Amino acid sequence: MSQRTLLLLSQDNAHYERLLKAAHLPHLRILRADSEAEAKAKIGEAHILMAEPARARPLLAQASKLVWLQSTYAGVDILLGPGERRDYQLTNVRGIFGPLMSEYVFGHLLALTRQIVHYREQQRQKVWQSRPYESLRGKTLLILGTGSIGQHIAQTGHHFGMQVLGVSRSGRERPGFTQVYQVPALNKVLPQADVIVSVLPSTRETRHLFNAERFSYCKPSAIFFNVGRGSAVDSTALLTALRTGKLGFAVLDVFEQEPLPADSPLWGQPNLTITPHNSAYSFPEDVAQIFIRNYIRFIDGQPMDGKIDFDKGY
Amino acid sequence: MSQRTLLLLSQDNAHYERLLKAAHLPHLRILRADSEAEAKAKIGEAHILMAEPARARPLLAQASKLVWLQSTYAGVDILLGPGERRDYQLTNVRGIFGPLMSEYVFGHLLALTRQIVHYREQQRQKVWQSRPYESLRGKTLLILGTGSIGQHIAQTGHHFGMQVLGVSRSGRERPGFTQVYQVPALNKVLPQADVIVSVLPSTRETRHLFNAERFSYCKPSAIFFNVGRGSAVDSTALLTALRTGKLGFAVLDVFEQEPLPADSPLWGQPNLTITPHNSAYSFPEDVAQIFIRNYIRFIDGQPMDGKIDFDKGY
Repeated sequence: MSQRTLLLLSQDNAHYERLLKAAHLPHLRILRADSEAEAKAKIGEAHILMAEPARARPLLAQASKLVWLQSTYAGVDILLGPGERRDYQLTNVRGIFGPLMSEYVFGHLLALTRQIVHYREQQRQKVWQSRPYESLRGKTLLILGTGSIGQHIAQTGHHFGMQVLGVSRSGRERPGFTQVYQVPALNKVLPQADVIVSVLPSTRETRHLFNAERFSYCKPSAIFFNVGRGSAVDSTALLTALRTGKLGFAVLDVFEQEPLPADSPLWGQPNLTITPHNSAYSFPEDVAQIFIRNYIRFIDGQPMDGKIDFDKGY
Repeated sequence: MSQRTLLLLSQDNAHYERLLKAAHLPHLRILRADSEAEAKAKIGEAHILMAEPARARPLLAQASKLVWLQSTYAGVDILLGPGERRDYQLTNVRGIFGPLMSEYVFGHLLALTRQIVHYREQQRQKVWQSRPYESLRGKTLLILGTGSIGQHIAQTGHHFGMQVLGVSRSGRERPGFTQVYQVPALNKVLPQADVIVSVLPSTRETRHLFNAERFSYCKPSAIFFNVGRGSAVDSTALLTALRTGKLGFAVLDVFEQEPLPADSPLWGQPNLTITPHNSAYSFPEDVAQIFIRNYIRFIDGQPMDGKIDFDKGY
């Protein structure tokens, strides 16, 4: 087999280079592009890219030898727009974000139910006073998206004694879920949910799935998380729901526009928590492992993990 | 069988009365004492007390018919001091605190690792900026006390991919723990721990178990929780460890003196979180269920759940 050239296009290039060289992958030459100029100079040599989607996209037209792009992120939607190339294999990273997303969701959820910020303020004032709270046990958790991330969050909810419902395109049963519904049943399921978590990808079907009508079906005490993609939520409708008491609280890690513009009214909403799209992070050790496994399959002509269907969009 | 009189001595009397009357327990007359005066007037009639330990203690000398006291709390140490009565059956509530303690520990732990307070501050300033963080996965959790609470916390740690070590008097294997050590091995285990959780009861052996020497064995980055009893920690030594970087952070729900006095230097320590002894709460539904089960055993002459050994102290 002839040699293949891999070009690294990420903020963790040095780390990836070290991990991949240590793996002694056969027939693989590893190049790094740490700047835009370097990327432009080397892109024509690359058969394989290991890249952040936003760094790769403007270079694809020049990537004349490209056969495979391994995204270092889960979200690859910017590579799927109309007019984008589709004549290569695109794989994303899957299976490593579930534990991190669970940490994020349950960290923020328990910080709210256990009123951690309130007690911090009380401590500043040296006040010893307890406030009532409720356990997660017996509460209902609704998860939109029942893939590996949704399943991990479901299992964490189950561990904390929650009833876990899911919504997916197929409505297929999944481990960790008491019941999974199809998207058209969403309005019937929403009124039961104490906690709602969207891990949905960005597709035509998920765009503004959470609009004013959806929020009108939520419990006024419900806590809404978006850790999937910003496009699933109409943020104007969300803000209105939070302001008018149709929804209790929201925790958002993803937005329609990122970074969230400084003049967004979301920043100042008291019953809303904003984090800068970091609920899960692609730790280089995990991503490198995925690449190594996929490379072996690639040279053997086997199907790779995380292969994206350009039509479905995930 | 002759009738027995139960006297309720708690802040949730009305709630307990309703729940127990609805259970139609045979041969049981239920009285309430909502004030000190009422308690003094009725204590002589009571065969059974369902009580907060601190409310019951000053009345025990007058409780001439007492045969059984069901504590509504887990902690009964104030009923076990020298000179206290021992001629009755004392039971506490067990098994209901594990899930609540897990919520507290992991809520505070994830709030720290995911820097929730920091992002809240950033949101106020409309700043979109991510900071590195580490997953709980692969970290080592050390739990002091391997009873039902410790086991639940262990299982939660295991769910989040942590390695879970335990320390107990016996060192016996317990579900959820990778390995359990005896107390004399503590100094050898401490240097491995990223997170330390004490759920120890107050006994002679646990008094100031965490002193300056112990803290000198901790990782400088370690996070220390006390959700057991305040007496297990020498708070002066803890404060010194936090100030001199021998310990990274502490989260305390229990103290040697409660409420924590307003002049305690603990209040102002930045790498210390204080909560007012509410990591777990005796929800009346749960406690009533325990009483009902125990009452059936009591009238059948069977051993009751949560029976305290006056010599061991738990």
